[in-house]
Amino acid sequence: MLNILFSAKPAAWDEYEKPLNAAFKAAGLQANLSRDHAPEDVDYIIFTPSGPVKDFTPFTKTKAVMGLWAGVETIVDNPTLTQPLCRLVDESLTAGMVEWVTGHTLRHHLGMDLHITRQDGVWRDTIVPPVAANRPVTILGIGALGAACGQALHALGFPVTGWSRSSKDIPNIRCLHGDEGLREALTGAQVVILLLPQTPQTENILNSETLSLTKKGSFVINPGRGPLIDDAALLAAIDSGQVAHGTLDVFRTEPLPQDDPYWAHPQVTVTPHIASTTRPETAATVITENIQRGEAGKPFRYLVDRSLGY
Amino acid sequence: MLNILFSAKPAAWDEYEKPLNAAFKAAGLQANLSRDHAPEDVDYIIFTPSGPVKDFTPFTKTKAVMGLWAGVETIVDNPTLTQPLCRLVDESLTAGMVEWVTGHTLRHHLGMDLHITRQDGVWRDTIVPPVAANRPVTILGIGALGAACGQALHALGFPVTGWSRSSKDIPNIRCLHGDEGLREALTGAQVVILLLPQTPQTENILNSETLSLTKKGSFVINPGRGPLIDDAALLAAIDSGQVAHGTLDVFRTEPLPQDDPYWAHPQVTVTPHIASTTRPETAATVITENIQRGEAGKPFRYLVDRSLGY
Repeated sequence: MLNILFSAKPAAWDEYEKPLNAAFKAAGLQANLSRDHAPEDVDYIIFTPSGPVKDFTPFTKTKAVMGLWAGVETIVDNPTLTQPLCRLVDESLTAGMVEWVTGHTLRHHLGMDLHITRQDGVWRDTIVPPVAANRPVTILGIGALGAACGQALHALGFPVTGWSRSSKDIPNIRCLHGDEGLREALTGAQVVILLLPQTPQTENILNSETLSLTKKGSFVINPGRGPLIDDAALLAAIDSGQVAHGTLDVFRTEPLPQDDPYWAHPQVTVTPHIASTTRPETAATVITENIQRGEAGKPFRYLVDRSLGY
Repeated sequence: MLNILFSAKPAAWDEYEKPLNAAFKAAGLQANLSRDHAPEDVDYIIFTPSGPVKDFTPFTKTKAVMGLWAGVETIVDNPTLTQPLCRLVDESLTAGMVEWVTGHTLRHHLGMDLHITRQDGVWRDTIVPPVAANRPVTILGIGALGAACGQALHALGFPVTGWSRSSKDIPNIRCLHGDEGLREALTGAQVVILLLPQTPQTENILNSETLSLTKKGSFVINPGRGPLIDDAALLAAIDSGQVAHGTLDVFRTEPLPQDDPYWAHPQVTVTPHIASTTRPETAATVITENIQRGEAGKPFRYLVDRSLGY
């Protein structure tokens, strides 16, 4: 019998208790899921940063910490966390992200806002967008989420460039890496999508210099992490016409304060960190499979490399 | 040397003359493209309904009429037209249609309008759409355009049902046909996309009875032809809540008159017949290939069956 500690906000317990126990049962995993195991008895921790566990020191026999979120920047620097840490890579989370990214890319590509907001009786049929084949898209960050978005955009005809810190090779995506690759990836891009992890190296990766490389009138779409963007530089690039519109789902402070200039700017769309939301049923299955891997002596999937920060 | 008559508006000549001659040359086709061949000398007519040719009787040796449009309802009943008539099926036209249909489907699926139109500082993060797998889409009309849209929506995870007059079998699409199939295709549909040809049989196919079969709060997307919809029935279905929103690109009268209730209705988005626009370069290539088929004694592609009206 495994002791599994659930450490998250009470609302998350209400959402996850049943799906997790159902997934354990379906997998034949003998597990006692609880919010109050004694630390020294805990085999696995299911974790969000907003839960009660802050100090991992007393969890002496814990084999892994299973995050309920894709991003782990808020715990990766916790010095007491010496146990393996796994991110959540969930198919429904990936599907939701692909839908959001593809939808907003098509929205900007097709110039939908004009039609949504200006139903004034004027038949503007001379404004014809190029086909997707003539609209290059660049994705910064081609991990599980970025690569999936890249495949969907490629299938719709967009030429897709992906950039990552280290070299990658992904079908249908022109893969670039490193500092020189970043300049090349952004040069001439008409849509820039941010799906990088938040690390000291990626902070402000979109700044006045890198924004100036994109094609004039480009679109910036950020479903990744708020600090990837130098906010003042983005607003200046929009006001100069270098960037036509920003659609932003994540921010340095969330909820985004009501007086933030992003809310008021007509060329910025704020969405409330909804690009991708974990669905408990699928997340429970992913976590259960990873615990089974650990129990079978196989390496955990989605293990965070703390030296890299993701 | 083939005599090819170009019969369309003068503006179309300016757009098409160079691409057509370039395509003929690239294909090694000896052709004399002109707007004023003597009718009895014409081998092929490149045609739009707004051009000068109304009576096809004097074109005694003409082997085929090549439409520049996908829809042919305005000439299919011309009793003087006894020559083979080909629709234009153009890849860039298909690509543009797939982009428009996929974009507006995702727009409604994700509830984008809320975020585009209400940037009021309120962080509405509890409104989470289902994943696409839980949002059934039904396409009425699964010819070249409808089938291509269906594949793109399937790739994004939407369950896709397609309906056509006669039986079809298309991978990834649940294909239904006939009157009983129509009821089944619409029952529970959350997004209904119209890509049928305009014929006496398809007029008003979306009416108060068929609209009532969809799931309450469904979305209607019409990039096909205006008369497919009973306009009064759609407006009533929106006002009753049966339909949440209509996004309409085609109308019985175009441009849509400024006083049409569609313009003013907050749950209707009018777009000005832009869902798919022929690009001259690709259209020229398609028409050239079809002329070559005719000259080689092969059957024409995209031949209109006048007994069916498409």
